Amino acid sequence: VTSVVTLTTDFGVEDAYVAAMKGVLLTRCPEARLVDLCHAVPPQDIRAGALRLAAAAPYFPAGTVHLVVVDPGVGSARRAIAVSAHSHFFVGPDNGVLSLAADSGSPAWRAVELTNRAYWQPIVSTTFHGRDVFAPVAAHLACGGQIDDLGPWLDEIEQLQLPRVTGGVDEIRGVVLDVDRFGNLVTNIRSADLGERPIRDVTAGSAQIMGLSDRYDPAARLVALFNSDGWLEVAAPGGSAARHLRLGVGAPVRVRFAV
Amino acid sequence: VTSVVTLTTDFGVEDAYVAAMKGVLLTRCPEARLVDLCHAVPPQDIRAGALRLAAAAPYFPAGTVHLVVVDPGVGSARRAIAVSAHSHFFVGPDNGVLSLAADSGSPAWRAVELTNRAYWQPIVSTTFHGRDVFAPVAAHLACGGQIDDLGPWLDEIEQLQLPRVTGGVDEIRGVVLDVDRFGNLVTNIRSADLGERPIRDVTAGSAQIMGLSDRYDPAARLVALFNSDGWLEVAAPGGSAARHLRLGVGAPVRVRFAV
Amino acid sequence: VTSVVTLTTDFGVEDAYVAAMKGVLLTRCPEARLVDLCHAVPPQDIRAGALRLAAAAPYFPAGTVHLVVVDPGVGSARRAIAVSAHSHFFVGPDNGVLSLAADSGSPAWRAVELTNRAYWQPIVSTTFHGRDVFAPVAAHLACGGQIDDLGPWLDEIEQLQLPRVTGGVDEIRGVVLDVDRFGNLVTNIRSADLGERPIRDVTAGSAQIMGLSDRYDPAARLVALFNSDGWLEVAAPGGSAARHLRLGVGAPVRVRFAV
Repeated sequence: VTSVVTLTTDFGVEDAYVAAMKGVLLTRCPEARLVDLCHAVPPQDIRAGALRLAAAAPYFPAGTVHLVVVDPGVGSARRAIAVSAHSHFFVGPDNGVLSLAADSGSPAWRAVELTNRAYWQPIVSTTFHGRDVFAPVAAHLACGGQIDDLGPWLDEIEQLQLPRVTGGVDEIRGVVLDVDRFGNLVTNIRSADLGERPIRDVTAGSAQIMGLSDRYDPAARLVALFNSDGWLEVAAPGGSAARHLRLGVGAPVRVRFAV
Repeated sequence: VTSVVTLTTDFGVEDAYVAAMKGVLLTRCPEARLVDLCHAVPPQDIRAGALRLAAAAPYFPAGTVHLVVVDPGVGSARRAIAVSAHSHFFVGPDNGVLSLAADSGSPAWRAVELTNRAYWQPIVSTTFHGRDVFAPVAAHLACGGQIDDLGPWLDEIEQLQLPRVTGGVDEIRGVVLDVDRFGNLVTNIRSADLGERPIRDVTAGSAQIMGLSDRYDPAARLVALFNSDGWLEVAAPGGSAARHLRLGVGAPVRVRFAV
Repeated sequence: VTSVVTLTTDFGVEDAYVAAMKGVLLTRCPEARLVDLCHAVPPQDIRAGALRLAAAAPYFPAGTVHLVVVDPGVGSARRAIAVSAHSHFFVGPDNGVLSLAADSGSPAWRAVELTNRAYWQPIVSTTFHGRDVFAPVAAHLACGGQIDDLGPWLDEIEQLQLPRVTGGVDEIRGVVLDVDRFGNLVTNIRSADLGERPIRDVTAGSAQIMGLSDRYDPAARLVALFNSDGWLEVAAPGGSAARHLRLGVGAPVRVRFAV
């Protein structure tokens, strides 16, 4: 049994750190199929890593191992963990970066603390657990090893708290969670936050956008739509909403409903 | 029968969009061999995508599936297509991005419109056909599925028009089509445009380059040569011709012949 | 017998050059497992390429073929070589870029000059030996071909000279070799340069750092530590030492010992 292993890091691609991890993976599980999920997570940005993982992980086949190294606490007392959820495995630091994708609501959810050094590299650096702890553990799981081998069970893992949507009957308020490559402003508002209420307008910075679109209409200067991951997004078709509106992560967004 | 699948997009690597497509591909065709062709196509730049695809595709083995998502018209009425040409498959929007590589001069050329939803994801977003339409269709072809399954035949597909080389007996004129990572100015002039006429000089911006080189001669400030893809290129060995000459895409280039 | 092939280039990912090489590799050795080691080597920076290769190569399985194209002399008289060392193969130009990883101290070290055109592409460009010479040679080795097929033996290859650590009993002096994505300043000082002498302080630019850390302590503004590759490094936990100290490659670093 061999599996897909995805890699998510904040290492960038300028150096050879990701390659060292892949070397360890292929040495220990030669048939693993490696897929870069994202290496452009902003340095030490746990939330950005968690969002990218949660966006792509559901599309991978059962048995996939997701290796995640956004790890500002490397070398400190933070725990290292592996989680089984949604028929996938997730390996990384216990700082919340896994918690959106490996949510504990999944049937047969199980988490372990990585304590069994038999599954690590023989020499473990203090600064690169991605290579020395997480990669060999991911290789173990990718080649059919048991999660129970890796350490004791945990009842819970660190949860990432996303900002909450607030508001009431007439309007709700959220914030920009992420800005993608196209300058689209991705908010924390999901379809369920609307219920049955139709949108009158969406306000982001200086812009007031009437109604909801279902695509990037090139005739519109700005649109609001639910994107392919289910988040409300403000976009400038053919341009960058982030640049047009001078908005970024954390900017407030308001949705008013038609009465 | 499993195949190589290449991916060409304007998604960049900052987000997890490419990974979601790879997840769909590996879920539907687990043995597909995924290769990134290029994800740095400038946003919505159909010509840049078409040129990159045409430069690399010929080097891939027979049966390769090229999945291309440079798709400014996603969600509009633009067609989605698959093409069989040169013993390869090409899958993407019908906006010209496939037309240089999948040229209809190929023997056994065949194109279909993607209309059969049985080969798409069960839920199709309006904004991410790369994941929901093109990736599952590419997986079908990579795992040996028939192109005829996907929809009705097309007689022709949208053609990308490259700027033409003009001129006469003494000189020809072209333009810069692309600037590569090294700052080399790649023009639309090919060897066939010269015929038997030897080059006297090449003029680009303020520079007049005498004769033709066959390599990046480090002793020369600027050289003109036919690059490894067969295009006339102006280069500054060890530096950037684009920066030295302050020229970019669209800049005129003139070739004069020795009489 | 099929192998992992890693690719290290200064091509960046903006163009399709890397993909063309992968196409050649997969056409000639369909089962080769391709891994990007690094494509962000600064253009023509042989030392940066050599350091990245040396950092990651040791983690790959026996039989791995490392294909390296940082090749400012392409088209000139510089030799093309393949080296067998440390149970790996290394293929690239003979300009020193292979010499740190494929060091001649390895048992069973062997080098050949690539002269046998039977293992190259049928048409060889003057400007892209990565695609036309090195990729097909790497494919030959990855699919179990013999290194002796490729050309005559060489007694030695070009050696890259790293700057030396100087100094004496009380202190040693080195330089910054590389700056990684996090702004960490990686020096040419290794643990062996210290012997048994404990560090009193490390001076880099305007900063004097007391003692040695074993991790990126978030409470410290600056730390000095031996990184996961064994080099002395100056880091700003949670920030960029390069930016804080306005230092880059070549900056002097001094280590004083406690008496």
